[in-house]
Amino acid sequence: MQLTSMVASINLGLQFPCSLSNNVVKLGFHSSSPSPNNKRRVSLMVNANSNRRLGGTINNGENNNINNKNYKVNGVRVAEAPLTLRKLKEDSAEEALVTCMHGRFQEGIFVYRQIFAIRSYEIGPDQTATMETILNFLQETALNHVANSGIGGIGFGATRQMSIRKLIWVVTRIQVQVQRYSSWGDIIEIDTWVDAHGKNGMRRDWVIRDHFTKEVIVKATSTWVMMNRETRKLCKIPEEVREELTPFYINRFAISNEDTDSEKIHKLTDQDAENIQTGLAPRWNDMDANQHVNNVKYIGWILESLPMKVLEDYYMTSMTLEFRRECTQSNMLESMATPTSKLIHGNNSINIKVNSNLQFTHLLRLLDDDQRPEVVRARTEWHFKNYANSI
Amino acid sequence: MQLTSMVASINLGLQFPCSLSNNVVKLGFHSSSPSPNNKRRVSLMVNANSNRRLGGTINNGENNNINNKNYKVNGVRVAEAPLTLRKLKEDSAEEALVTCMHGRFQEGIFVYRQIFAIRSYEIGPDQTATMETILNFLQETALNHVANSGIGGIGFGATRQMSIRKLIWVVTRIQVQVQRYSSWGDIIEIDTWVDAHGKNGMRRDWVIRDHFTKEVIVKATSTWVMMNRETRKLCKIPEEVREELTPFYINRFAISNEDTDSEKIHKLTDQDAENIQTGLAPRWNDMDANQHVNNVKYIGWILESLPMKVLEDYYMTSMTLEFRRECTQSNMLESMATPTSKLIHGNNSINIKVNSNLQFTHLLRLLDDDQRPEVVRARTEWHFKNYANSI
Repeated sequence: MQLTSMVASINLGLQFPCSLSNNVVKLGFHSSSPSPNNKRRVSLMVNANSNRRLGGTINNGENNNINNKNYKVNGVRVAEAPLTLRKLKEDSAEEALVTCMHGRFQEGIFVYRQIFAIRSYEIGPDQTATMETILNFLQETALNHVANSGIGGIGFGATRQMSIRKLIWVVTRIQVQVQRYSSWGDIIEIDTWVDAHGKNGMRRDWVIRDHFTKEVIVKATSTWVMMNRETRKLCKIPEEVREELTPFYINRFAISNEDTDSEKIHKLTDQDAENIQTGLAPRWNDMDANQHVNNVKYIGWILESLPMKVLEDYYMTSMTLEFRRECTQSNMLESMATPTSKLIHGNNSINIKVNSNLQFTHLLRLLDDDQRPEVVRARTEWHFKNYANSI
Repeated sequence: MQLTSMVASINLGLQFPCSLSNNVVKLGFHSSSPSPNNKRRVSLMVNANSNRRLGGTINNGENNNINNKNYKVNGVRVAEAPLTLRKLKEDSAEEALVTCMHGRFQEGIFVYRQIFAIRSYEIGPDQTATMETILNFLQETALNHVANSGIGGIGFGATRQMSIRKLIWVVTRIQVQVQRYSSWGDIIEIDTWVDAHGKNGMRRDWVIRDHFTKEVIVKATSTWVMMNRETRKLCKIPEEVREELTPFYINRFAISNEDTDSEKIHKLTDQDAENIQTGLAPRWNDMDANQHVNNVKYIGWILESLPMKVLEDYYMTSMTLEFRRECTQSNMLESMATPTSKLIHGNNSINIKVNSNLQFTHLLRLLDDDQRPEVVRARTEWHFKNYANSI
């Protein structure tokens, strides 16, 4: 399989359901342990990206000349190689470069790591990486994780068995906690992994560290369900897909249970929204390959409804997005926000002082009909910049 | 010098003058040859980014343990190391990683090269890297070029002698020719270099190649003048700055003279603009670290005034932007466009068929007063997608 063919027929894993509330899938909790003995015979792809450039798919992995420690999952080989000098020497230069650019598995097959340098255009007015940049990085790492796992199908983030069944992932909720924002030139590493989320969901977590000091700077967790890309209905995870996924599952949490924001996000109404920015229109460049607004773009609109004073004087320390409906270029939106309360943090891992923080509730909704259907609900927390040294 | 301090007090080299037309600097042409013997004693920085992480500035370069072939310019050491296996082995793993992420000099001190992988969020609705992505890459490479040259001062793209004099670079014109757009996962390399442009200007060129095949996929050239960041007046290049710059100058053209678009861009009026998209408002995330709209963001607005059919059915093969005025978040804009003519190309290096191409003239202007002052004039050329194989 060529990466180009994956891109040619795209259905974003990061799409949203037409209306999640109309297509409820009941989610309970269970955790799945890896089952590496559950092998099936599938064609092998160690690294989709490097293979494409370095001579095509390696069949069954018996005669390949890659010296890394290899792991097999469902008969699929995945490669591990931390970015150390020894590994760089063992690899070809091209292979090392591809690894450096696209990421690689760590800890066997459980964690995928990609390294990023913060670029000049990824920082915002306060000279640090924006929340949009962070979410872009998370998306990229997740997609490379699937593409290089050996189970990747056609479409961003989809497995082979999902592609056969015209299934795509849709994200229902994401929570991001920021300890510190990075600056231009900083090198960060992002670890991502997946686990079951109830019977019919998947949880994907990320931890971003400073590559050199290993200081944790961002933690994130998200939940995903499966949707038929044609009927736009949510569905259970088919057994064949579960078999592909479970060997990769690891029961580990980026954000501890007590810090996970699982509270319902209040639905803002015209009455209780303090700030409303209306008439927001997607630009051509906001569209993804499936002609839908990429979810990362919502962040820009969410910020639009905040008072300038908040954007200037506060850092966003936490954000929870709850996705309700997709948005296309023909849609017009409005962004609503209201401060919920000043925060008093107890055992939150971010050490913040009382009265120095703000919390907002947000709603993005479509302007297209009188119903004003919801697109995203969000909760953001903000930390006064003068106290920046304390976080 | 620490990179953080460069970022802390930022004045973008990519800013625009308040009004270039009011501050004309006469530009003639001359070319400067490198003068490596013109040494001065300055503190040494081989690689600003790696030094920051790997133990600080190396004084005078005599006792450093970096094994690369080194070059001295004005007493400043710059490092060359193409990304080959041999060089990767010689470097420490961290050094190799930094090189991979931030770029490195090639051909002595004349060309700076940075490698990029196209990321999932950098492709547009047609699944290829957007023009905005390309311009972001060009900017990043240019800034890393200066930061790693050993002459970098405070502020993006400024030299030390510029910083002392509160001078910044402003881009007056940029032309980008696209042979082929890249896809997600593609690895490209960007070479950039500078030369004199007349007595008081600088030309910066770029060539983007497919990293593996070395196929040229994008060529670009730009002209820059110097401005006092406080008075906002253009000025001549001071002799001390010229001494810093000229050793790096190389008389080489990414775009041949005959393909360089040096024609005046016609100023659109209300009468001759076929499409006008008004009420465009910068978003918070469009601002750069200097609270101005980053010039790359203008591309989004330029595209806003094109018929959807053009965006869907054509590739942009060429773009020339002429910057006239800066824009802040409080400004509202309108984007105007009109098709100029179908193109008939003669000796242009892009082989395109007659009648399969379109050319547009664009104007972005401020809505703030009745004068509607110009921000950017642009010319774009578009190639019908069915003929994509012929480019």
